Amino acid sequence: MAEGPPLVAELLPRCTFPPPGDALDCAVSGGADSLALLALAVAAGCRVTAIHVDHGLRAGSAAEADVVAGAADLLGAGFVGRTVAVGAGPNTEARARAARFSVLPVGVATGHTMDDQAETILLNLLRGAGSDGLAGMEPGRRHPLLGLRRCETHAVCAALGLAPVHDASNEDPAFLRNRVRHELLPLCAELAGRDPVPLLARQAGVLRDEVTLLDSLAAEAAPDPHDAKALAQLPRPLARRTVRRWLRAAGGGEHPPSLAEVERVLAVASGEAVATEISGGRRVRRSAGRLSVGPARSDSVSR
Amino acid sequence: MAEGPPLVAELLPRCTFPPPGDALDCAVSGGADSLALLALAVAAGCRVTAIHVDHGLRAGSAAEADVVAGAADLLGAGFVGRTVAVGAGPNTEARARAARFSVLPVGVATGHTMDDQAETILLNLLRGAGSDGLAGMEPGRRHPLLGLRRCETHAVCAALGLAPVHDASNEDPAFLRNRVRHELLPLCAELAGRDPVPLLARQAGVLRDEVTLLDSLAAEAAPDPHDAKALAQLPRPLARRTVRRWLRAAGGGEHPPSLAEVERVLAVASGEAVATEISGGRRVRRSAGRLSVGPARSDSVSR
Repeated sequence: MAEGPPLVAELLPRCTFPPPGDALDCAVSGGADSLALLALAVAAGCRVTAIHVDHGLRAGSAAEADVVAGAADLLGAGFVGRTVAVGAGPNTEARARAARFSVLPVGVATGHTMDDQAETILLNLLRGAGSDGLAGMEPGRRHPLLGLRRCETHAVCAALGLAPVHDASNEDPAFLRNRVRHELLPLCAELAGRDPVPLLARQAGVLRDEVTLLDSLAAEAAPDPHDAKALAQLPRPLARRTVRRWLRAAGGGEHPPSLAEVERVLAVASGEAVATEISGGRRVRRSAGRLSVGPARSDSVSR
Repeated sequence: MAEGPPLVAELLPRCTFPPPGDALDCAVSGGADSLALLALAVAAGCRVTAIHVDHGLRAGSAAEADVVAGAADLLGAGFVGRTVAVGAGPNTEARARAARFSVLPVGVATGHTMDDQAETILLNLLRGAGSDGLAGMEPGRRHPLLGLRRCETHAVCAALGLAPVHDASNEDPAFLRNRVRHELLPLCAELAGRDPVPLLARQAGVLRDEVTLLDSLAAEAAPDPHDAKALAQLPRPLARRTVRRWLRAAGGGEHPPSLAEVERVLAVASGEAVATEISGGRRVRRSAGRLSVGPARSDSVSR
């Protein structure tokens, strides 16, 4: 596919795709954001594969795979369909997300826009996630559309004659993100007297620069996060960041570590406690001056 | 006055008053927060002077001075009454605040609580004020009650038999802070499924530690904020902080500098622009490699 219609050429400079010729897997649900991701990635010159995940949660979800396969064919991208089983029960959104990411390749690009960024920031604010959470998602090859508005992805689909799948769950107030979108953001707009989305996105960029600098200082000051003594002697902000970085790299938690968890791990590092349980059924313990993280249940308490 | 009733002794460890014997001026409007500030400051052993500012905006505002004078007398604190003239017109809240601070001594303590802290953080979020704004007010002698909830200041007044002045303007939705208090915070509480006030306050503390570290790194890397070349060569997060610190120290703006203003000043530092106007009718200009800030109108454009 060539550059496409004028709108696509106009939006591309605000996207953060990898260089032309690079392979790029794109997660494509069939909604406007992800169809626009697919179209823009192709227009950017990447070798694109659209990956659709059928959660089997909605009637007609298999037909959505056909929509994505058809769009990929039209645009000249590859297509891979995956199916996961998400049973009924509580916390469907989080379980569907976990199942989806379990079958998507590492580094897959998603169609999150500036509007999703603002929603993510407010969700993180409600969790008290600190500067990492308020810095939102990082623009780059995994999130190439953070510079675009949601309405622009709809315009891309319209310009290319792509008919997006309508996902009714985007209106369901049972999902916290939808209440942020339909209640919290509009109230913020009313109080601020202007659209808060670009404001929150710009602020996230500044916070991200600060977070990146602090993380590099922390990595320099404490190259080994398992060294309890070194950790306990760091300036508090760097010690907190080292713990965050370590726990996130270790994996196993759904969200970034909470402020309270980080403080409890630092108490273990300084010797005020021997071990502490953290989210994801994990336990952080100290033994012979070394910190380790593992499953809570298999851990026998020892000094 | 001795330690007072059990409630006062219980709350004092969560306050950040200066050591016993220190002189402390307290801004006291006569509301529950500031009357509690007065009582707790006396109980902390400070030599306290209550300062009341009559804005002349409300019928009966002179009588409020009598309430404060009476409470100061009862508690064994000094009293000073000041009167300022705030004319009718738009933006009354900001003008009253400016007039009040023009007659209050530097370093005066105020009765802001953890609830005010949360409101301030959300107001700053709506302005996109970056990490400084999200770090809120700094606990210490100027804000000794940030560890207390608003309801606790009412309880202190009740325990001591002090009858606070009711300020009807606290309910007026024309003031943005009141809409944050009565609409935004309750919605956040509903979505978060818990009281967001302690969450936001705890997050502010972590952000403040990071901001303090970044500021000290910035001060070390660029001791002279007027040196345009040195500023332009700093890592972006430190350059931004140096500009913020400089503009705030220079005074003249009502709010902390906005992200956009800071970027424009950095463009002047790097030579992309010769001068830029910023809030408060000020202009930042570069001349012979030096940055300066002054009134916009008296500034003649030159290289």
